[in-house]
Amino acid sequence: VTQVWCNGAFLDEKDARLSIADRGFTLADGIFETLLGIGERPVWLAEHLRRLRDGAAELGLHIAFEDQALEAAVVALLRQNGFARSAVRITLTRGPAAKRGLWVEDQSSPTLLMTCASSAMLSEPQRVVVARSTRRNEHSPLSQIKSLNYGDNILARREAMARGATDALMLNGQGRVVCATVGNLFARIEGQWITPPVADGILPGIARGKILSHMDVKQASLSEADLRSADAAFISNSLGSIDIVEVDGVQLRPCLKELPVGVLYDFE
Amino acid sequence: VTQVWCNGAFLDEKDARLSIADRGFTLADGIFETLLGIGERPVWLAEHLRRLRDGAAELGLHIAFEDQALEAAVVALLRQNGFARSAVRITLTRGPAAKRGLWVEDQSSPTLLMTCASSAMLSEPQRVVVARSTRRNEHSPLSQIKSLNYGDNILARREAMARGATDALMLNGQGRVVCATVGNLFARIEGQWITPPVADGILPGIARGKILSHMDVKQASLSEADLRSADAAFISNSLGSIDIVEVDGVQLRPCLKELPVGVLYDFE
Repeated sequence: VTQVWCNGAFLDEKDARLSIADRGFTLADGIFETLLGIGERPVWLAEHLRRLRDGAAELGLHIAFEDQALEAAVVALLRQNGFARSAVRITLTRGPAAKRGLWVEDQSSPTLLMTCASSAMLSEPQRVVVARSTRRNEHSPLSQIKSLNYGDNILARREAMARGATDALMLNGQGRVVCATVGNLFARIEGQWITPPVADGILPGIARGKILSHMDVKQASLSEADLRSADAAFISNSLGSIDIVEVDGVQLRPCLKELPVGVLYDFE
Repeated sequence: VTQVWCNGAFLDEKDARLSIADRGFTLADGIFETLLGIGERPVWLAEHLRRLRDGAAELGLHIAFEDQALEAAVVALLRQNGFARSAVRITLTRGPAAKRGLWVEDQSSPTLLMTCASSAMLSEPQRVVVARSTRRNEHSPLSQIKSLNYGDNILARREAMARGATDALMLNGQGRVVCATVGNLFARIEGQWITPPVADGILPGIARGKILSHMDVKQASLSEADLRSADAAFISNSLGSIDIVEVDGVQLRPCLKELPVGVLYDFE
């Protein structure tokens, strides 16, 4: 039976149930992190906890545990579940509301939940389309933290599936290409690797940060015309990086094997 | 003990618990409606169910009940709880995910939940500020349906509270004034009542629709300069309408008593 951790206690997944008044459920009032576990080792945990705390500060959410306690919990969760390769999710919400409506209580009882699932290495190269059904909101701080507000990404993913693609690239309000639905975007244009800047409305991915310090990548806005002139592209997130081999029906050449990206994820 | 209704069954609120894998909780993958109950009478229920079905269609969510069954459930919920004046919330999510990540299953088991709370008539006139911390995304279909993605509205409300106001008015990406955090905006400018059009990124409120068919109101975009030239303004939602008596420190005159709006809510 899969184990989860909730507010300090380990539980069987089937016994872990949420209040229907949890503001994570009623109003998407929370944040999360998804991180890779290799055996009992949580990957880039310090960076994920840093980002969790930054997101919590942005929303005024309290985390009742020190990093050391959170690390011990993640490691114990990985040990108890015993998967070779895991996706760990840490979810933090404002918890059950004392009264209905948008009202934000000073005194809240946050929900802090950690779950763990067996997760295979990403392998299928991505055929993407540029989403036309919705856009990311670069005017919102939520576009730059890992908030629970994933509705636009879900719409974009649904559009991709309806159009026979595996994922979608999203535009921001100004029409700049900013990211995929669950990862950052890197594109090679005239020999230069480019990734959109955070101000364009992207999550500052942990893997993105590692890649930026490991490869020559320029942070610059990408127009759709820029994207069409790319000869290679890939998507990164904390679970892996993966080639984009098609954009709106145009083929790109797989490139990740030639890049020093794989070594970043080489934990085994 | 407060009663709730979940997927066809009535339960004590304390026994109604959610799966931690519910996509409403993990990804804000759902919608809701809030409606007024007067005794056992749900107000404007047909309109709320129509909007619920429209939102469900937009997200590809299935509703396993006919309107007649939903109406019977709402009426029974109002009767069992016995409040004189209630706020009923209907929440629909894609339900527990069969696997992690953004992947959208064709076969899902949606969560349909109805809760009921005693709700006093709105009375306190609103002192609002124009939110500077975030904006609504008029490029997203979610701005026009009542999705669970309330993060931006929560940020705006938190900003309002930090600035000593009772609520915030929100701008869209183009800088147009569009709505309050939980209601539509009406402003009187040179004697003409104006409310922003849906395309500016607002929820087409049920009360807003009633007011539009009851009063001479023009649907037009509002700039911040327009807002500053208003001499009266109010906010409407399904639970009531309320005067705005201050915008960014500038006083407005209460006006609702002079308008034929109150009669719309006169159910008692």
